[in-house]
Amino acid sequence: MKIFFARLCLLVLIFAATAATAEDGYRLWLRYDPVTDEKTLREYRRSITSIVAPGDSQPLRAAKEELSTGIRGLLGKDVPMVEKPGTLEKGAVVIGTPRTLRGLGGKAELQQAGKEGFIIESSRIDDTPVTLIMANTDIGVLYGAYHFLRLLQTHSDIGSLKIVQSPRIQHRVLNHWDNLDRTVERGYAGFSLWDWHKLPDYLYPRYTDYARANASIGINGASLTNVNANALVLSGQYLDKFAALAGVFRPYGIRLYLAVRWSSPIEIGGLKSADPLDPKVQQWWKDKAEEIYRKIPDLGGFLVKANSEGQPGPGDYGRSHAEGANMLADALAPYGGLVMWRAFVYSAEDRTDRAKQAYNEFKPLDGKFRDNVLIQVKNGAIDFQPREPFHPLFGAMPETPLMMEFQITKEYTGFATHLVYLAPQYKEVLDADTYANGEGSQVAKVIDGSLHDYSHTAIAGVSNIGNDRNWSGSHFDQANWYAYGRLAWDHTLSAEAIADEWLRMTFTNSTAFVEPAKRMMLGSWQAAVDYMTPLGLHHIMGTGHHYGPAPWVSELSRPEWNPVYYHRADKQGIGFDRTRSGSDAVSQYFPPLNEIFNDPERTPEKFLLWFHHLPWDYKTDSGRKLWDELVYRYNQGVNTVREMQKTWSSLKDLIDEQRYRDVEAFLAIQEKEAVWWRDACLTYFQTFSGMPIPKQYEQPAHTLEYYKNLSFPFAPGRGG
Amino acid sequence: MKIFFARLCLLVLIFAATAATAEDGYRLWLRYDPVTDEKTLREYRRSITSIVAPGDSQPLRAAKEELSTGIRGLLGKDVPMVEKPGTLEKGAVVIGTPRTLRGLGGKAELQQAGKEGFIIESSRIDDTPVTLIMANTDIGVLYGAYHFLRLLQTHSDIGSLKIVQSPRIQHRVLNHWDNLDRTVERGYAGFSLWDWHKLPDYLYPRYTDYARANASIGINGASLTNVNANALVLSGQYLDKFAALAGVFRPYGIRLYLAVRWSSPIEIGGLKSADPLDPKVQQWWKDKAEEIYRKIPDLGGFLVKANSEGQPGPGDYGRSHAEGANMLADALAPYGGLVMWRAFVYSAEDRTDRAKQAYNEFKPLDGKFRDNVLIQVKNGAIDFQPREPFHPLFGAMPETPLMMEFQITKEYTGFATHLVYLAPQYKEVLDADTYANGEGSQVAKVIDGSLHDYSHTAIAGVSNIGNDRNWSGSHFDQANWYAYGRLAWDHTLSAEAIADEWLRMTFTNSTAFVEPAKRMMLGSWQAAVDYMTPLGLHHIMGTGHHYGPAPWVSELSRPEWNPVYYHRADKQGIGFDRTRSGSDAVSQYFPPLNEIFNDPERTPEKFLLWFHHLPWDYKTDSGRKLWDELVYRYNQGVNTVREMQKTWSSLKDLIDEQRYRDVEAFLAIQEKEAVWWRDACLTYFQTFSGMPIPKQYEQPAHTLEYYKNLSFPFAPGRGG
Repeated sequence: MKIFFARLCLLVLIFAATAATAEDGYRLWLRYDPVTDEKTLREYRRSITSIVAPGDSQPLRAAKEELSTGIRGLLGKDVPMVEKPGTLEKGAVVIGTPRTLRGLGGKAELQQAGKEGFIIESSRIDDTPVTLIMANTDIGVLYGAYHFLRLLQTHSDIGSLKIVQSPRIQHRVLNHWDNLDRTVERGYAGFSLWDWHKLPDYLYPRYTDYARANASIGINGASLTNVNANALVLSGQYLDKFAALAGVFRPYGIRLYLAVRWSSPIEIGGLKSADPLDPKVQQWWKDKAEEIYRKIPDLGGFLVKANSEGQPGPGDYGRSHAEGANMLADALAPYGGLVMWRAFVYSAEDRTDRAKQAYNEFKPLDGKFRDNVLIQVKNGAIDFQPREPFHPLFGAMPETPLMMEFQITKEYTGFATHLVYLAPQYKEVLDADTYANGEGSQVAKVIDGSLHDYSHTAIAGVSNIGNDRNWSGSHFDQANWYAYGRLAWDHTLSAEAIADEWLRMTFTNSTAFVEPAKRMMLGSWQAAVDYMTPLGLHHIMGTGHHYGPAPWVSELSRPEWNPVYYHRADKQGIGFDRTRSGSDAVSQYFPPLNEIFNDPERTPEKFLLWFHHLPWDYKTDSGRKLWDELVYRYNQGVNTVREMQKTWSSLKDLIDEQRYRDVEAFLAIQEKEAVWWRDACLTYFQTFSGMPIPKQYEQPAHTLEYYKNLSFPFAPGRGG
Repeated sequence: MKIFFARLCLLVLIFAATAATAEDGYRLWLRYDPVTDEKTLREYRRSITSIVAPGDSQPLRAAKEELSTGIRGLLGKDVPMVEKPGTLEKGAVVIGTPRTLRGLGGKAELQQAGKEGFIIESSRIDDTPVTLIMANTDIGVLYGAYHFLRLLQTHSDIGSLKIVQSPRIQHRVLNHWDNLDRTVERGYAGFSLWDWHKLPDYLYPRYTDYARANASIGINGASLTNVNANALVLSGQYLDKFAALAGVFRPYGIRLYLAVRWSSPIEIGGLKSADPLDPKVQQWWKDKAEEIYRKIPDLGGFLVKANSEGQPGPGDYGRSHAEGANMLADALAPYGGLVMWRAFVYSAEDRTDRAKQAYNEFKPLDGKFRDNVLIQVKNGAIDFQPREPFHPLFGAMPETPLMMEFQITKEYTGFATHLVYLAPQYKEVLDADTYANGEGSQVAKVIDGSLHDYSHTAIAGVSNIGNDRNWSGSHFDQANWYAYGRLAWDHTLSAEAIADEWLRMTFTNSTAFVEPAKRMMLGSWQAAVDYMTPLGLHHIMGTGHHYGPAPWVSELSRPEWNPVYYHRADKQGIGFDRTRSGSDAVSQYFPPLNEIFNDPERTPEKFLLWFHHLPWDYKTDSGRKLWDELVYRYNQGVNTVREMQKTWSSLKDLIDEQRYRDVEAFLAIQEKEAVWWRDACLTYFQTFSGMPIPKQYEQPAHTLEYYKNLSFPFAPGRGG
């Protein structure tokens, strides 16, 4: 009888907890819902009987709280938290550092764990079987706690653990492009999380949940405002606001970076110049750094976009990026601060090829930067296109730490509504071989420092986080945040493995759900590339907002703002000739890539029109003519989305109704927009090719005029 | 044993439900948490054993769902929902209309309930004791269901109910000032709820919760976009989006109104003119109305801001407001649509007194409007100031239905952070006697139609709702939304009664909490008036954003944009002379008010400086000189806020921690800003009075220069 009622209570508890929690996505991958597999639950309840956690730093408190919340949720019972251990009980989860665990006899091979890593070990202390989560630092313990919870969330066997992890990249940063008016440039998840007006006085609980989510995947830095920066960021009034947020993030090991405006000394300092060689300017930055570090002692440093897209910079005074970055670096050096200087530059002058400019400007500066400067390079040479070849700077600056900038927010890949899992895109770039030091010189080895022995290593992801309830604008976009963090920690993880754990943590461990959903995710990026910009096409989207197709736009004032600049379609063919007889961008790559990319027959077909202008009847790998291949690819993209819809329908009964419906509605939008992309682009390119869309394909529903006349003045993400 | 475990289960259930629900304010006053008073719970469980609800319209389904959710939550058990009743059980809650309840023998005095009202009666059907919720229409049943739930939420005795209610005003509308880019003019609760980009394809669950909240307080109309309107609102693309929202709101009895831009025929219609006497323009509006009603058959009508603050209007063509409104009215008439034409006008021309303009423009037009036109008049003649005398138009247009426009969003009363309960402000205006038909001609009788026998009656409230999780920007600002709705339904309710029920529903029924919290709310408006604009001062806040004090501003291009225009402080004294020897605004009021307001000795002191320019040593009611009284009032405001902080501290243990802390943090901001208001205003006015701040008061911490130099370029609520 007693057992019956106890079970009933548990059932009631589970039911109530489920019923009371709206499945709105707020909990991200940190749900901690009860383990549903009975055998696993029994094992966990046996293996986890208490948490033994001496020590009391901020990160340790965070670790304890998270473990306690997580285990209560997952196991459906409270386990005692032992802060001052006597004798250990069987099933204790013992967490700490050599310092806090002294006397407990916990031993571990901590050398490999480094400053932020951890070990998780099924161990024995005084003959008592325990699970040991140990690290050299308190923050390492927190990371270990999150990893242990991830094991439970994914129903992993915890019977004989022996895990050692440490991050491969030192600084794993989120870049928010949030404006002070709370609009977000390229934000599709509502508006900015940061309510500057109420700061520093009011701290939303959500700020803490943001920090938890980041710490759970190892992100340890964040710049909160737009790289198109406002000088007020450095005003005393705003520094107080940043300091308040830094206080929230600190327990979770997250350091703030400030996105600074080059001309701040003029705008808020009252100086007449921002010339980096002007001693008054140098002094202003030194004084400012002193003020900043007084308020935020652990600031990570500055993030700078200079002389790019209208932003001021050292070039305004005839100085180089190195002279500019070094001045800031000197101001930050006394405090251990870094300068992350963006390589995303393209000038208003008419040059032969925008793709070449960053390389041309930065490569000659290799070795000329201070030790505490990193150059932040986008994954490709244009701008976060659905697919780009890796940026030729990677490998080309052995004396200067290069860091990667990925875009998590889906500026060019369908905004919030398209289901596009970006880990395969990140992986394609990370795994690409630069051949800088011969074969095996992958981009990943550049940015983790192993190829050139960089002293600082870093990676940045442009955040997709906003004040939408689900954080990222859609349930599946959370996976891109998650994947970015996981890859920043360990770029050797596969896109599939990350999708697998994310799905289990976010939806359910049911294989019947996980396997099909994973296939859907893994195919989704290629689908978007196909229905937007197949075969190496790029930057043919709507003007300004980048919403939808607009390959016809040609009247914008700067040539490289126009889609026609990039696709160069004419009666003869289509594509951007970057070969030696064209813009010669291919020569920015190391051999043999310079040769491979120079030859359409050897160029991987996914980059064909990136490097080559080819006739409409050029024969592609499939044997189809280029035009027919283009038609095929666009249709392939649409078809894959329709397959995704079918797959999703089949999963209806395996997850909660709300999230099922949300995704279903977004997939319907994605299908509609994929068709729009296909039909608008083909209808337009057809005016050049003069060739028919073969009968076996759906024919466009509208005329080219119709597509051209569509207008979306309030498409999101324009920023302030 | 069994009972023990059953009780334990209930406890676990309650605990789990509570624990799993973050106290973030999302649930508003529709929480439905378990009844904590054991006696009451027992009584409710006995009196409510089933819901008998035949019939299946949208509003009836909404009523059933709400009752079912509400009763499950409040009573902690499911009661059966009987759709096809056989014999009734004791304790049935029988809901429906004469049509749906035919054959059940339910009888009720429904005459008084009208079209939207209801009766709730402890009754007997075939000798079985039941609770009858009955109405003439399905939507009336829904209102009755919400009222019944309110009785339970406030722990009211439901043993012998005999309630008949019907709304005193026909159209109870929310006006959102939301822009199409999702910024919100005067919005302090984040950004717009309406995600136009994803409409019509994706409907947030929150849209439904918005409708539920409104229906629960009787709001039956909403215009969703800014009165500073965008012509795109009337484009086919956006009408589809509105239609989708109308579909969500329809089951809850909420009709959409469209905030239209006067010049739409030019901007989206391709016409050369928007002249209301131009047949092409007239035809364009007729065609547009036809298109709109095809998509939204139950559209309430149009809301128009014309020839005000730069908006286009019929005046651009030399036509009157009547000619303009009538043209739109003719277009809407075939579909039963209304035109709500705003009287908030003031021109750029230098006039003697902005306060006089609306009266001067509209009064002569009385009787010249079509039957389906209402004139929407702000509560006061300037602009939603912390306190204003009622607008002199009320009572002055017996032949034209005037509707009230209140501001719920706190543009001039502390944004989101100040705790200012506005019901006393609304009540002061509603209860003010216009003397239009002699004594007893209250404003409320004007707008409910009883004074002039209007054929249409309406009231509008400028919404404080945004995408902040708590809807209104703060927990206590929810009370203003609630109070607006309740007063729109029944303006005879007292501010205290509304605060009482709102506190019980939103926080707890504990008297130890409700009584002090209520006192705090009821005193809060006067406090804000005191620390911002005591004694009839007005419009001395920060330029543009209206954040904080800026009485010194004098350089804006239009005279009436400058605070100095309103307070007119000089060496002689302070205040706006609106007497017969001044601007003569007093003569817009009926006798005896014109005489009373003309005489500083008879003018209520709360309006003293609204109507009079008085010397600094003018003797006030307290016996203090005007300057000293000003100092006293400003300090009084600050003191009251400090009392509120004390009160709130004393309530800490009576409610959840999260909301306690949120309110605590906001009160600290309010205290800081109240001090800022006081010190900035007194420091500034002192430059004229030349008199000291008596020693018993806190002295300003900063110089006038300091206050003048404060700058808030990103204060919220500026809009797009």
